[in-house]
Amino acid sequence: MKIITTIALSATFLMANSLMDDAKNAGLVPIPSSKTELLKLIDNPKNHITDAKVKLGEKLYMDPRLSKSELISCNTCHNLMEGGDDGVGAATGHKWRHNPHHLNSPTVYNAVFFSSQFWDGRAKDLEAQAQGPTLAHPEMAATKEHIVQVVKSMPEYVKEFKVAYGDNIKITFEKITDTIGNFERTLITPAPYDEFLNGYKEAMTPKQKEGLKTFIQIGCASCHNGVALGGEMGAFNVTATYKYMNVGDFKGDKNGMVKVPTLRNITQTAPYFHNGKVWSLKDAIKEMGRIQLGRKISDKEAQSINDFLQSLTGKKPNLSMPMLPASTAITPKPNLD
Amino acid sequence: MKIITTIALSATFLMANSLMDDAKNAGLVPIPSSKTELLKLIDNPKNHITDAKVKLGEKLYMDPRLSKSELISCNTCHNLMEGGDDGVGAATGHKWRHNPHHLNSPTVYNAVFFSSQFWDGRAKDLEAQAQGPTLAHPEMAATKEHIVQVVKSMPEYVKEFKVAYGDNIKITFEKITDTIGNFERTLITPAPYDEFLNGYKEAMTPKQKEGLKTFIQIGCASCHNGVALGGEMGAFNVTATYKYMNVGDFKGDKNGMVKVPTLRNITQTAPYFHNGKVWSLKDAIKEMGRIQLGRKISDKEAQSINDFLQSLTGKKPNLSMPMLPASTAITPKPNLD
Repeated sequence: MKIITTIALSATFLMANSLMDDAKNAGLVPIPSSKTELLKLIDNPKNHITDAKVKLGEKLYMDPRLSKSELISCNTCHNLMEGGDDGVGAATGHKWRHNPHHLNSPTVYNAVFFSSQFWDGRAKDLEAQAQGPTLAHPEMAATKEHIVQVVKSMPEYVKEFKVAYGDNIKITFEKITDTIGNFERTLITPAPYDEFLNGYKEAMTPKQKEGLKTFIQIGCASCHNGVALGGEMGAFNVTATYKYMNVGDFKGDKNGMVKVPTLRNITQTAPYFHNGKVWSLKDAIKEMGRIQLGRKISDKEAQSINDFLQSLTGKKPNLSMPMLPASTAITPKPNLD
Repeated sequence: MKIITTIALSATFLMANSLMDDAKNAGLVPIPSSKTELLKLIDNPKNHITDAKVKLGEKLYMDPRLSKSELISCNTCHNLMEGGDDGVGAATGHKWRHNPHHLNSPTVYNAVFFSSQFWDGRAKDLEAQAQGPTLAHPEMAATKEHIVQVVKSMPEYVKEFKVAYGDNIKITFEKITDTIGNFERTLITPAPYDEFLNGYKEAMTPKQKEGLKTFIQIGCASCHNGVALGGEMGAFNVTATYKYMNVGDFKGDKNGMVKVPTLRNITQTAPYFHNGKVWSLKDAIKEMGRIQLGRKISDKEAQSINDFLQSLTGKKPNLSMPMLPASTAITPKPNLD
């Protein structure tokens, strides 16, 4: 009896070990368990992460007064209380306008691990990304001047900028978006999957491990790899035979390519694809097999991959609800038109 | 020297004491410093406040999926990170529609102390109030069925309802709004003014005390009284000669009266009046003198009252950012139309 148990345990051990190797060979990288290593990965060498910047960045991220209407914040479309997104098909902003290309708001969680930002990868990092929606007319619809005036009108914000950057800080649009980016860099969600890849073999269930194997064998990891299981350019060509290719007029990047979305917290970020047209995760898995891998993914395989994806649901940071400074007499007034 | 100091101190003591008496005689009531007494004031005898209900109520309050578009939560118009309101003139909701009567979103902070809810006082308490905006077309625009289905579609919510109310709980629209109301009852903000009225004489600055005196002498406390310094019916008749009486088509209650808004956190809840037409607190003070008290309030008096109002800016509860349960396959889809 004892011998059999030992053999069984060894088999599990070997299976898990070889799965870990397979995962690493497929380019899958866990979020490091060491805080120092993690900080190296997420930090901005040009604007190091500090507590003061993160605290201020969170306030700015949550502050709707940065928008023209003063009703829409970064959090409206990238809701940290949900999956870091908005759960609707196309982003909807100022005057209830929808994204003109019918683009879906991607999650901000773990976006720091992407090699570029936006569906066409046109921004190099989170700091550059934050300059987009704040000014885009169907989103926050503000001007740089509005945003700077709003922030500078409140002594508490001015003080916090000084604490974060020193007394000589000049509060510019770029410094504001840099600070929002600094906060966003900390929005990472370690998951059972990471524990598993970091060596704790029991962190994933047997079904999830089986699913990871299927995920690698079928070839999903050829695009969904790295720390974010996505985030590089090169998902399907938008002009290819895609079921919903005619939704919106998004052209992708210069090669017609869409950025590969992260699979982390994918159970919380429906609807799927850049145009938010697919609500079922299993449907999305099958559609990807057909377009990307040129193969039919069976129901059983899709279910197995779906099982694996559950292990990517991570622990979100514990955030306190920031209390925003009060507007003053010189704070620009909202404009709903 | 010692004698003079003693006399001066005694005079301050007497002044503060007599001001406290004047305030109490004018019907001003502090938020009790004793937690037991406070709980008596804010509790709902038909649905006692418990930690489990408050925790669940906070999630429901923050959850945009309760609205038709799944983009608008209670917090959109009653933003707890701001003054418990939205900072725009007229409430703006589904499809960017504005409140048809051009009504301003009142603050939810300390609203538990009001004798009735809404500007026309048509809801008797916070629980009844919560049934309004969730269904109102220019606000969250949902149906009762949508809201119940959304909540019941997520096992985490179902479990939390059982924890809060017992295993036999039936999750109805009314139970959901009751739970939101339960959370809202805890949103109180004790201020230096309360410390002063509770006996700590140095909690208010000399200018603020001077302002309180002016506030009482001029007659502001004849409407702005009780714990909320407002909250009873009986502000100006909307058909009276009010500078902005022609904004919107709000008719008030059956007597044409508007509810007296709270003055707590008034520095954070501009714009003012039921139609959100006045941005300056000093202008609002003067306009009230003219319409309500039939007298001109001088610049100096307005400044003095303004000084007093600063002492009503309270400490908001420390809230953590709740993480909302993930939608499931049976969660109703958003409808942006």
